Amino acid sequence: MRIAVIGTGHAGRTLAQGFQRTGHDVVVGTRDPDATRGREDWHGLDVPLAALGMVAADADLVVNATNGQASLAALGEVGSDHLAGKVILDVANPLDFSQGFPPTLSVKDTDSLAEQLQRAFHQSRVVKSLNTVTASVMVDPSTVGDGDTTMFVAGDDAEARQQVTGLLRELGWSDIVELDGLHNARGLEMWLPLWVRLMGALGTGEFNIKVVR
Amino acid sequence: MRIAVIGTGHAGRTLAQGFQRTGHDVVVGTRDPDATRGREDWHGLDVPLAALGMVAADADLVVNATNGQASLAALGEVGSDHLAGKVILDVANPLDFSQGFPPTLSVKDTDSLAEQLQRAFHQSRVVKSLNTVTASVMVDPSTVGDGDTTMFVAGDDAEARQQVTGLLRELGWSDIVELDGLHNARGLEMWLPLWVRLMGALGTGEFNIKVVR
Repeated sequence: MRIAVIGTGHAGRTLAQGFQRTGHDVVVGTRDPDATRGREDWHGLDVPLAALGMVAADADLVVNATNGQASLAALGEVGSDHLAGKVILDVANPLDFSQGFPPTLSVKDTDSLAEQLQRAFHQSRVVKSLNTVTASVMVDPSTVGDGDTTMFVAGDDAEARQQVTGLLRELGWSDIVELDGLHNARGLEMWLPLWVRLMGALGTGEFNIKVVR
Repeated sequence: MRIAVIGTGHAGRTLAQGFQRTGHDVVVGTRDPDATRGREDWHGLDVPLAALGMVAADADLVVNATNGQASLAALGEVGSDHLAGKVILDVANPLDFSQGFPPTLSVKDTDSLAEQLQRAFHQSRVVKSLNTVTASVMVDPSTVGDGDTTMFVAGDDAEARQQVTGLLRELGWSDIVELDGLHNARGLEMWLPLWVRLMGALGTGEFNIKVVR
């Protein structure tokens, strides 16, 4: 699959390498490919870069790995034409650090970042997933405990959820809870306030939860 | 320990019986003891009832098991004099069902029900716990999976958190994550929007999460 990852931060970089590892043709979108290539954290990485306006032209699936506060603008630069008809896997969180740590959520409870994206790019099919764990765990669940923790997938379109679930299985996820309806992204994003507090209490972001019945 | 449980709903009833089982002297507070005793769900229960204004006079610890929308008013009737100097174990959630299911939260993100209670009853020490699971799991974690799931405790006062942790261990909880600071109750209450959605997806409220490192 041709996957366009939007965002050059830790999550974008880690996801790009994860999807390369599982055999996909990955390109990462950035405003200025030369500037990104010159950054220390991109030095020597074998990951193709492209300008936002071009990155999704030939993509089969687009991953939103931008800062949640910048996602609408960044995907706007990718262009609704290039996003139309495609699945947008949204891994971002609307974390607002403007008042320090712990962050608050800039959208919540009666709306979510994922739903904002779906409204803005209504010809795309947004699926929320992977936002509940840190980047290294997203692409390698075996790093946590015995590797058997839970991942969630929320979206309106069953076929789009299935496409994402397939990518997750390739990355090593086996316990996947599907939530029918993108409004369920409200619950997934509202997990973050507890996640950031547990990160503080546990002294690491490399953890996850297992839903036990 | 003499425990006053405020609230006669499913959570209050279940907690009262749980704390009786673990050897405590329990009384449940209600506006009208005779009316509560006459209710079908209280028929034949061997749990003492007392009027709100009396229930906490001799209590060592008070449990808020009321509907989150009514907690401030109910504890107001219990009386700040009777609550002063005591630990208030707050298991309630600020769920707002006025727009149907799933509920939203009437306070969140920059404040929490637990903090509202702490401000209103500033001579008490509020500890948030047990609000992350359904009533039957609160008092018997062995009903979920192999019984080894995670419970959280948040509060400003270390001795108060320890008192609650002791009660939890008696009920069967062993994996207890302590969060230093009652502001962490924001994270615990914001877990509920995901909890209610998982209840829908799993078809049961009898589940919990295990935090895996």
